[in-house]
Amino acid sequence: MIGFGNVGKELIRLFAEPKPRFPALVPDLLTITGVVTKSHGALYNPRGLSPSAILQTYRQDAGFDRNSSDFYSGEIPELLSDGDYDILVELSALNIRSKGEPAFTYIKQALQKGRHVVTANKGPLAFHFKELRELAKKSNRLLLFESTVMDGTPVFNLIKHGLRGASVLSFSGILNSTTNFLSELSERGISIDRALESARAKGIVEADPSDDLDGWDAAAKTAILCNVLFDSEITPFQIPRSTFEEIFAKDIRRSVEQKLRWKFICEGTRVNQKIHASVKLTPVDESHPFYRINGTSSVLRIEADSLAPLTIVQENPTVTDTAYGVINDLLEITNL
Amino acid sequence: MIGFGNVGKELIRLFAEPKPRFPALVPDLLTITGVVTKSHGALYNPRGLSPSAILQTYRQDAGFDRNSSDFYSGEIPELLSDGDYDILVELSALNIRSKGEPAFTYIKQALQKGRHVVTANKGPLAFHFKELRELAKKSNRLLLFESTVMDGTPVFNLIKHGLRGASVLSFSGILNSTTNFLSELSERGISIDRALESARAKGIVEADPSDDLDGWDAAAKTAILCNVLFDSEITPFQIPRSTFEEIFAKDIRRSVEQKLRWKFICEGTRVNQKIHASVKLTPVDESHPFYRINGTSSVLRIEADSLAPLTIVQENPTVTDTAYGVINDLLEITNL
Repeated sequence: MIGFGNVGKELIRLFAEPKPRFPALVPDLLTITGVVTKSHGALYNPRGLSPSAILQTYRQDAGFDRNSSDFYSGEIPELLSDGDYDILVELSALNIRSKGEPAFTYIKQALQKGRHVVTANKGPLAFHFKELRELAKKSNRLLLFESTVMDGTPVFNLIKHGLRGASVLSFSGILNSTTNFLSELSERGISIDRALESARAKGIVEADPSDDLDGWDAAAKTAILCNVLFDSEITPFQIPRSTFEEIFAKDIRRSVEQKLRWKFICEGTRVNQKIHASVKLTPVDESHPFYRINGTSSVLRIEADSLAPLTIVQENPTVTDTAYGVINDLLEITNL
Repeated sequence: MIGFGNVGKELIRLFAEPKPRFPALVPDLLTITGVVTKSHGALYNPRGLSPSAILQTYRQDAGFDRNSSDFYSGEIPELLSDGDYDILVELSALNIRSKGEPAFTYIKQALQKGRHVVTANKGPLAFHFKELRELAKKSNRLLLFESTVMDGTPVFNLIKHGLRGASVLSFSGILNSTTNFLSELSERGISIDRALESARAKGIVEADPSDDLDGWDAAAKTAILCNVLFDSEITPFQIPRSTFEEIFAKDIRRSVEQKLRWKFICEGTRVNQKIHASVKLTPVDESHPFYRINGTSSVLRIEADSLAPLTIVQENPTVTDTAYGVINDLLEITNL
C-alpha cells in the first residue's frame, strides 16, 4: 500500500476491526505486507503487518516509528520490484502538475511485475488510463479504481456489470463535494474564508485545496469518466473548468432569491467520435434533478443509447465510503 | 424462450436489428432455438430460428402460424426436457394466485437439466427464490433476473458487484410505474377510469390490471428484494399492501394544495434477523427524495451498514429497457 492519508488510515482501521463491519472482510483474507509513504516513513514485513500495529506505529506528525522492527528505509521502486505482494493499493494524493506522477510509474511497475492494482488516486487514470489499461490487459491483471470518481459509489461496477454491451453517450454529475458544500454555504452568505474553514473541519478539502477550488479534482474525475466510458485519451488540462472564485463573483444571494442554485457540474458527451467535456458552474432551478444534491452528496447521471437515463446518488459519504470502494475492488480480486 | 408478450417481442425485435443498438449483441452471439407460449402456439428448431422470421410468423390474435415448418405442437415440459438449448429465457406474466406457476416448475426443470435461466417473471422469485437459488448453485448454473424489479435498471448487478461484502440493512423505492403514473393523473383530478385508459394506451398496465391496482406487482417486487438482499423467504401474501382505490378515497386534490404527493412506496428492512416489508401509499412532501419521481420513472434507495445511502433512479423507461435487462443477463452468461 502506497499512501497513508485519510483513506489509507480508514482502510487499515477497517481491517483492524475485530468484528468487521463488512462481513466479507474476514481476518486473514488479505495479508498487508507493506505500507509506504513519501515523507512519513514505511513499514514492510513479508510475513505480514498487523493492522492494529500499523495504526499504533504511526504518529500524526512523525509518521511511522523508525524504531519499529518493521520499519523500511529503502526506496519505493525497489520494494515494488523485489517486495512480496500480489496487489498494489495506490492511495497517494492527486498530483495535477506532475500528471499523476510518481503514482503512475509505481502502478506501471506493479502491473509490469504481474501484480493487480487497486487505486483511489485520480492522477494516473486521468492522465494515462489507456496505457495502464493496455498494460493490465497484457499482464492479465486487474486495474481497479472504484474510489476515484464518486467516493466509492460503485459507478464503474454499475457500468461494467449493469450496462453490458450498451453504449454510453453522455454523463453529467456533481462529483466534487467540497465545491458543492462551499456553494451551499455561500448561498447562506458565508464568506469564502469561513466556508473553507468549515470544509477543512469536515476533512473534505484535498491535500492541495486549489485542486478543489480551481476545479482540478472535478476535471480529473471528468477525464477518468471520459477515458473509461468513451475510450478517449483526454487529460484534465484539456477540460474547460470553472473555478470556485466565480461563485463569489456571481451575485449568488440574488440567485437564491430567484430559487436558483449554482452547482459545479461535470459533463462529458460523445458525439460520433468526438468527445466534449467540461466542469462548469451552472445555475439550476428546482426542476433540475441535481437541485437537491446538497452537502457532500454526489450524483452521476448516465445516458446510454436506446436506454432510459440512469442516475445514481450517494448521500453525504464519509471517508469510510471511499475506503469501502477500495475494499470492494480488493474483494473482486480475492474472488477471482 | 417462454412467453411472447411485450418484453419477449421487444427482445426478438432487438435481436432482429441488422445493426444492433447494443454493440455487444452481434448476430450469432446466441441462437434462438425455441419460442413457446401458453395459448399462442410455439416455434422450435434446434438449428435456430431467425429473429425476423419469428416476428413474421406471429399474428397478434392468432399467434404463431400453424403452417410454419418450425411450428411446435408439443408440450412445454417435453421441450424443456428434450429440446436443444443452453439458456431458458422465462418471460411469461406474473401469476400471483398460482404462486408463480407454471413458470416456477419450468425454471426448476431447466436448472435441474443443467441449463442457465434468465427470467423477467416476478412470480417464481417472489414465491420460491431460495429453492431456485439453491438449485442453481447445486447445478452450477446461473439464475439471473435483472428485469424483474426495476424494468432492467441494474439493481441486482449494482448490489452484487458494487456492494461486495457489504451488508444491506434496508431499501425503499417506487417500483410500480403504473400506480405512480395513475396517482399523478388523479392529482390532476382525472377519474380512475380515464386514468386507467391512459395507462393502457401507454402499455404500462400488467396483463391482469388488478396486479398493479391491488399492489400485487409492487408486493412481488418487494418480496424479491427481501429474498435476495436479506436471504429471507417472504412471499407477496405476507406483505401488507395499499391498493389503488385508496388513492381515490383520499382527498388527494387537497393534498396537492398542501404540496403533498401520494406515492406507492415499497419498503424492506432487516432488524437483527427480523424482516419488515410493506407496500404503502405514503404522502411525501417536496423535501422527500421520491417527491419528483414522476411518470413511469422508478427509484430504489439502499442503505447498507456503515455506508452512505445509495439511490438509483431510472427516468421513464420503455419496454426496451426491460428487454435490455434480459440482454444484460444473457451477456453475463455468454461472457462466462
